Amino acid sequence: MIRLGRETDMPTLLALIKELAEYERAAEQVENTEAKLLADWQAGWFEFLVAELDGEVVGISLYYKRYSTWKGTCFYLEDLYVKPELRGQGIGLALLKETAKTAKKAGANRLDWQVIDWNTPAVDFYKKLGAQIETEWWNCKLSLQEEY
Amino acid sequence: MIRLGRETDMPTLLALIKELAEYERAAEQVENTEAKLLADWQAGWFEFLVAELDGEVVGISLYYKRYSTWKGTCFYLEDLYVKPELRGQGIGLALLKETAKTAKKAGANRLDWQVIDWNTPAVDFYKKLGAQIETEWWNCKLSLQEEY
Repeated sequence: MIRLGRETDMPTLLALIKELAEYERAAEQVENTEAKLLADWQAGWFEFLVAELDGEVVGISLYYKRYSTWKGTCFYLEDLYVKPELRGQGIGLALLKETAKTAKKAGANRLDWQVIDWNTPAVDFYKKLGAQIETEWWNCKLSLQEEY
Repeated sequence: MIRLGRETDMPTLLALIKELAEYERAAEQVENTEAKLLADWQAGWFEFLVAELDGEVVGISLYYKRYSTWKGTCFYLEDLYVKPELRGQGIGLALLKETAKTAKKAGANRLDWQVIDWNTPAVDFYKKLGAQIETEWWNCKLSLQEEY
């Protein structure tokens, strides 16, 4: 069952975000906390869906609006994660489809996300789904802790 | 002079978006129109800054909120563009700094954007500024024209 995330999901949401970061070999980069996640969600910075199995949250999709100057309104899928022991059962696909539906309902023309280059199973899954993959763009990040 | 973009800037905004797409060798990919840009801006999908020189708009910065599950609140800089004949005078830097200030004021921890791999002058400019550049993420895009 896929449903919209709610306040009581925050501890599980953070736990699954951390599991995904571990899988992406970047666990130490997660600076977020349950309190911050809750406050940011309440302030409208993101929404999320959860996949439930026997009353337990086993997967998440976290997304927000973005804008393409070329194509117009888009949604950005920040995190898509399903617990490793439950993969291959269509839970990820169900989360992705429901995210696409939600985006479309909100007026988005396209759903965007990123995949890390060595994650071949994910790349293959996204290609089969009909996603277009671009390898020529590099991410730039500027911390705003300093003054500019 | 850097100022917030407004309704009357839409024709120039679209013209500069198209100039940037041409520079990125993707002019044919711009499907956006002035009417759509205006409607999307009015609906809050993005904000933009313009750089004015002698009353003429010569550069733009277009941005919106994004969210990192690892770092929290961020801003995403979708387009940064200065007319080619006016580069090297600090207009791009002024636009980028003002975007960073705007993001920080709105509570963002980080400013993110992308650069295309062969754009060496831009990569060097961003590195000098202190930006962290990541090359291992690929962009995935799923059109929402079909049903999911």
